[in-house]
Amino acid sequence: MYSIVVENIYMLVIVTLISVLQNTFFALKVEKECRSVISNPAAFERVSCANRNCMDSYPTFLAVMWCAGLCLSQAPASFAGVIYLVVRQKYFVGYMGQTSQSTPGYLFGKRVLFFLFLMCIVGIFNYLLVRFCSSDYKEYVETITSAVCSSPTPLGQGVSHNGTNNLYVF
Amino acid sequence: MYSIVVENIYMLVIVTLISVLQNTFFALKVEKECRSVISNPAAFERVSCANRNCMDSYPTFLAVMWCAGLCLSQAPASFAGVIYLVVRQKYFVGYMGQTSQSTPGYLFGKRVLFFLFLMCIVGIFNYLLVRFCSSDYKEYVETITSAVCSSPTPLGQGVSHNGTNNLYVF
Amino acid sequence: MYSIVVENIYMLVIVTLISVLQNTFFALKVEKECRSVISNPAAFERVSCANRNCMDSYPTFLAVMWCAGLCLSQAPASFAGVIYLVVRQKYFVGYMGQTSQSTPGYLFGKRVLFFLFLMCIVGIFNYLLVRFCSSDYKEYVETITSAVCSSPTPLGQGVSHNGTNNLYVF
Repeated sequence: MYSIVVENIYMLVIVTLISVLQNTFFALKVEKECRSVISNPAAFERVSCANRNCMDSYPTFLAVMWCAGLCLSQAPASFAGVIYLVVRQKYFVGYMGQTSQSTPGYLFGKRVLFFLFLMCIVGIFNYLLVRFCSSDYKEYVETITSAVCSSPTPLGQGVSHNGTNNLYVF
Repeated sequence: MYSIVVENIYMLVIVTLISVLQNTFFALKVEKECRSVISNPAAFERVSCANRNCMDSYPTFLAVMWCAGLCLSQAPASFAGVIYLVVRQKYFVGYMGQTSQSTPGYLFGKRVLFFLFLMCIVGIFNYLLVRFCSSDYKEYVETITSAVCSSPTPLGQGVSHNGTNNLYVF
Repeated sequence: MYSIVVENIYMLVIVTLISVLQNTFFALKVEKECRSVISNPAAFERVSCANRNCMDSYPTFLAVMWCAGLCLSQAPASFAGVIYLVVRQKYFVGYMGQTSQSTPGYLFGKRVLFFLFLMCIVGIFNYLLVRFCSSDYKEYVETITSAVCSSPTPLGQGVSHNGTNNLYVF
């Protein structure tokens, strides 16, 4: 059971570890500016605000990534997570280097989070379809598809007279 | 293994997705007020503070809800999670509309979090009871209960003379 | 499947519950100072800042502890989590009692988080080694070790002439 669990989440764990490294990088930047707050209060204010914005959306990101990875598939979720981390790094660096009043705003990585959110929706919808509609809706879909494909067309009326008629039914 | 995992957490995932949607709503409000911070700094201060209070307790809420859902049962945990989200929405809206100095305070949803916390405690206690006291304490409880119920009362002395005596033992 | 899952995470759940209790303690302190903000704004500022620093690193701590517990082993991860909570408590109390300008800084518990991070790395590395290098690398390691240990040294040349030669091979 141990290896089964790890097999399904190890990519997510790796992305989580990378994000923890990034958090540590952000925190060290804040720590560094915190010591020189007297000489440069504006820089401390900027880096503190950037760190706070990143930390505010961090639980949301973790929750969506893990839900998407558990419900649907871990590989695309981890890939989207890596892209989110790249976007966050660019946001943080851009926020720090901003000397004018205009800052990059509060939100970032909206598209990546939206993609992960959609993955969760699809995974949940898939599960509910499997459970409540029918326990074997894939077989139904295949049956319907094959029935439609092999339905006797006007050009093939003579086909239905042979002994393989039950092949169309099942 | 895939569907077993999803079967036990899909309600929690749905509540998590709803909370993510709510977070996005809060963040969009902050983003909107952030652009008009020059004209109305008090409104920005209020919505930013409300968002920060909500985000501060968000990891706590997620941790307690998922622990309660995993340890005991997902249905009541999800229901309590939905109630917490409703309380949070009312808190946020009430904080934004507050024009006087008195704000609704820092904490909210205490009772819901306490309920989820109690669910975790019960789940852990149940597990530890099953594991350490006895691996089959339910059978013990049933045996004791049936023994008490079927003990020969003074009115039923003649019952214990027949051949079904071992029925009382097991 | 229910009890198997709980068996592997119940210590982590207990540590999470203790951290939730601590969060509630912090929040109650903030709530209390929030009401007397007019009379003592400096104390409110300190306790609010200490609470925010603790909350900023809380998701990181939870993520690392759960990853370490799931990937490697729950007992050392839970123990490190308890130590982190003790460090956090000391940090919070020390921050509140600080009356001078010098505060204890932004970061705390770096060593505990680093230890948990290393546990995650070891767990992931172990899993990848098992999966990609070979499915039974433990047997290989044992074979190599026994082969090295039982290799005929110049002092034991006569040993290899008896019939137990295949014992050295396998």
